[in-house]
Amino acid sequence: MSSSDLENPDQLVTSTNPDHPANLIPSLCAKFWTLGWVTGTGGGCSIREDDLVYIAPSGVQKELMKPADIYVLSLAAQEASLKNRTYLRSPPAYKPSQCTPLFLAAFTRRGAGCCIHTHSHWAVLVTLLLESAPGDGKLFEINNIEQIKGFGRGFQKQGNLGYHDTLRIPVIENTAHEEDLTEFLEAAMDRSPDTYAVLVRRHGVYVWGDNVHKAKTQCESLDYLFQLAVEMKQLGIPWISDIPVVKPTRI
Amino acid sequence: MSSSDLENPDQLVTSTNPDHPANLIPSLCAKFWTLGWVTGTGGGCSIREDDLVYIAPSGVQKELMKPADIYVLSLAAQEASLKNRTYLRSPPAYKPSQCTPLFLAAFTRRGAGCCIHTHSHWAVLVTLLLESAPGDGKLFEINNIEQIKGFGRGFQKQGNLGYHDTLRIPVIENTAHEEDLTEFLEAAMDRSPDTYAVLVRRHGVYVWGDNVHKAKTQCESLDYLFQLAVEMKQLGIPWISDIPVVKPTRI
Amino acid sequence: MSSSDLENPDQLVTSTNPDHPANLIPSLCAKFWTLGWVTGTGGGCSIREDDLVYIAPSGVQKELMKPADIYVLSLAAQEASLKNRTYLRSPPAYKPSQCTPLFLAAFTRRGAGCCIHTHSHWAVLVTLLLESAPGDGKLFEINNIEQIKGFGRGFQKQGNLGYHDTLRIPVIENTAHEEDLTEFLEAAMDRSPDTYAVLVRRHGVYVWGDNVHKAKTQCESLDYLFQLAVEMKQLGIPWISDIPVVKPTRI
Amino acid sequence: MSSSDLENPDQLVTSTNPDHPANLIPSLCAKFWTLGWVTGTGGGCSIREDDLVYIAPSGVQKELMKPADIYVLSLAAQEASLKNRTYLRSPPAYKPSQCTPLFLAAFTRRGAGCCIHTHSHWAVLVTLLLESAPGDGKLFEINNIEQIKGFGRGFQKQGNLGYHDTLRIPVIENTAHEEDLTEFLEAAMDRSPDTYAVLVRRHGVYVWGDNVHKAKTQCESLDYLFQLAVEMKQLGIPWISDIPVVKPTRI
Repeated sequence: MSSSDLENPDQLVTSTNPDHPANLIPSLCAKFWTLGWVTGTGGGCSIREDDLVYIAPSGVQKELMKPADIYVLSLAAQEASLKNRTYLRSPPAYKPSQCTPLFLAAFTRRGAGCCIHTHSHWAVLVTLLLESAPGDGKLFEINNIEQIKGFGRGFQKQGNLGYHDTLRIPVIENTAHEEDLTEFLEAAMDRSPDTYAVLVRRHGVYVWGDNVHKAKTQCESLDYLFQLAVEMKQLGIPWISDIPVVKPTRI
Repeated sequence: MSSSDLENPDQLVTSTNPDHPANLIPSLCAKFWTLGWVTGTGGGCSIREDDLVYIAPSGVQKELMKPADIYVLSLAAQEASLKNRTYLRSPPAYKPSQCTPLFLAAFTRRGAGCCIHTHSHWAVLVTLLLESAPGDGKLFEINNIEQIKGFGRGFQKQGNLGYHDTLRIPVIENTAHEEDLTEFLEAAMDRSPDTYAVLVRRHGVYVWGDNVHKAKTQCESLDYLFQLAVEMKQLGIPWISDIPVVKPTRI
Repeated sequence: MSSSDLENPDQLVTSTNPDHPANLIPSLCAKFWTLGWVTGTGGGCSIREDDLVYIAPSGVQKELMKPADIYVLSLAAQEASLKNRTYLRSPPAYKPSQCTPLFLAAFTRRGAGCCIHTHSHWAVLVTLLLESAPGDGKLFEINNIEQIKGFGRGFQKQGNLGYHDTLRIPVIENTAHEEDLTEFLEAAMDRSPDTYAVLVRRHGVYVWGDNVHKAKTQCESLDYLFQLAVEMKQLGIPWISDIPVVKPTRI
Repeated sequence: MSSSDLENPDQLVTSTNPDHPANLIPSLCAKFWTLGWVTGTGGGCSIREDDLVYIAPSGVQKELMKPADIYVLSLAAQEASLKNRTYLRSPPAYKPSQCTPLFLAAFTRRGAGCCIHTHSHWAVLVTLLLESAPGDGKLFEINNIEQIKGFGRGFQKQGNLGYHDTLRIPVIENTAHEEDLTEFLEAAMDRSPDTYAVLVRRHGVYVWGDNVHKAKTQCESLDYLFQLAVEMKQLGIPWISDIPVVKPTRI
């Protein structure tokens, strides 16, 4: 970030490159709105490029968002002083997102490049089904579904999960104020260091990835699996199965 | 409204500003059609700016509506003479919407800036489920779902509902003629002064807000909750729950 | 139709007017594809203007159809000689639709201006539910739903159905060849002279109207009701109810 | 393929013709993404024109794919040397699709011109329902549904299936690595020589056709039938029925 940026902070969100975070967040959020993930200003999205963090504001209609609506902050400055958050660039008409400390947790603790928060009702239904099932309902588990391959094997690990691997997504309880979720999200990251997502009971899901591509496709794959899980439950099919491994016979 | 407007009423619906009500109603209605809210000319939308009320006509295909199709009336003139409704501007090819007195009720009794009427089948299904459940079925209640935060706390109150608050939407019985719903809608507003919506049994829902942004996002959040409620019923999960409050441990 | 048309039949499908039938059929069919009504080249659409009948061809991907793909025939010539159907204009690459005699039945027997055929799976599911219910399953009936108002009262009758009226759609059994449905569709029209639609078991629905607007909005309203009916069945709510009439108390 | 193509392989994917395979694959995949068939980089699509095979790469967001992302290989060269696959043209940023040998099987063993692989959750649910039903669950069967007519009668046979015919789609078990499916797909083709599709348990479906039009419309029709089958199961309606043939009475 050059000093000229600070003299004119709007430069931070002005670019003709469609892959610039200030352009990408609005186009992603419009897509997420169509998928029913960010209904009624719910949910959000943040992208990190090196030290700069771009965040959609609070209370915006996600399908109508514009680059000029984006907040920008410095991750380094943020870590030094969590209490008094300052923004390199703020939009004139909005308030900062309550999701901000949760996005920052993904960036600082997992080195994520993008974090997406959805209110997808498939995610909410999965947390409700777990709540009413035996056990403490604090872990979503599914295995033997091809789409599981859409997830990385874990933090600082190479490669993706396999078809027979069990995908495990921790569930945390919702709090009255969204920023109060932060400590529970961080604790879930500590307990499940390889997860790329945390479900929030009766609320939705946070999904991240090393970059925009991975966060977005992992979020899609997860929503696919949540929908499948709800439909499997309606049809009486268990999420965890023990099926034989099929091996090729050719050499 | 200047006298020149009255000399050329079409000026009232002619603007290059996409946020002008005569442009906004068609673009909103096209979006609502895609969401299945205004199928087959059902439903409608009205925006108030100060004294001027803009209303989609009756019987129009909502995804094809144009600014020239919009009615305009004066709220003040309306209140003085309800029986003989006159329009400042009428489209040549359509009839006034039967929803008009219901929209006016939201504007005059709640100071709303926008009112949306949908035939969303999630709304209809919720009223059917309430009808066949024990009790008089005249109140939809749901709590402990994050999306509830999408609603204002109530008429002339500051702030929004919280996660643990119970959202309550009154249900009125449908009448043979839509304008006859008006007195029942007004009575429901009197009984539930803080509601921003009224369900109509076997028909749909009326949702309003202080402005277009609030009416539209509250309508989206409500439809999300109606869909969730139907799916929860199919999965045997109750709409009202008693769950512990999770408090942050950090100071 | 002037003689010049016959000298250059392509003129019959060439117009810059978006409401010309040769332009309207492709734009309607693209919309129907998005709604899941004409999946995999299924379904179809025909518009009549005076003596001229415009028909989508057989086997075309409905969302990709172009004006040049449209067949045109003369209704008068058709009636005089049903056996040897001749077309005023034929596209070079396609075959005539097997739906043609069914569309013509709506035009000649009901004076319809437009007829739509969908394979909507809501329509198919309704016919399957009726098949497995007690009775002969040859009539779909629903009442006390607001969307019923979207239908005309009947052939050569003024006005629309009311909220408390029962909408009745006859069901005919499917035949191996689509054109063989014609006599059964015509018999259903004779038995139910006021219907604007006929369901075909395990196949879909034919819906018509006096003009494109009415056929399209009636088709939408019907699909809405079929979807609602399937969901009501899943939730144990009957399609026919006996509810009290609510009358306004004001004078 | 001229020698100039080999000198400049990018020519193989550069064309202003929207029906060129390098343009068609991205536009088809964008459509499939909207249908939920290729969520999170899952699924794929390949087109063959004479000896040239065009394939979408691995790991690409399907709705964002561009012609420059496409692989091209020679079918003849491929058959001669399966082990060391070489590409006439490779995109700079991606890896070859693991679906490649499965697409090639459709091209070489069935003379297909296009093959589509989806992760449609309707397909996955059908394989799960079959798995938990009596029998070996290795065949999906449905009859007496109009949409069945959307399928060709079989390999090197003329015409399409009829309404009363039973559509049979073999199911193979999923393997840990997608390319290992190839031998099982080929064996299913041998056992069911007339099928145009093979379901993969807990994974999705492969569908092919003589050309793009047939592969795409057969894939649509099949997804329609899978969705219908899941809904029929939820409503207690069997997939196979024995219903009387309705014959026309007119001569």
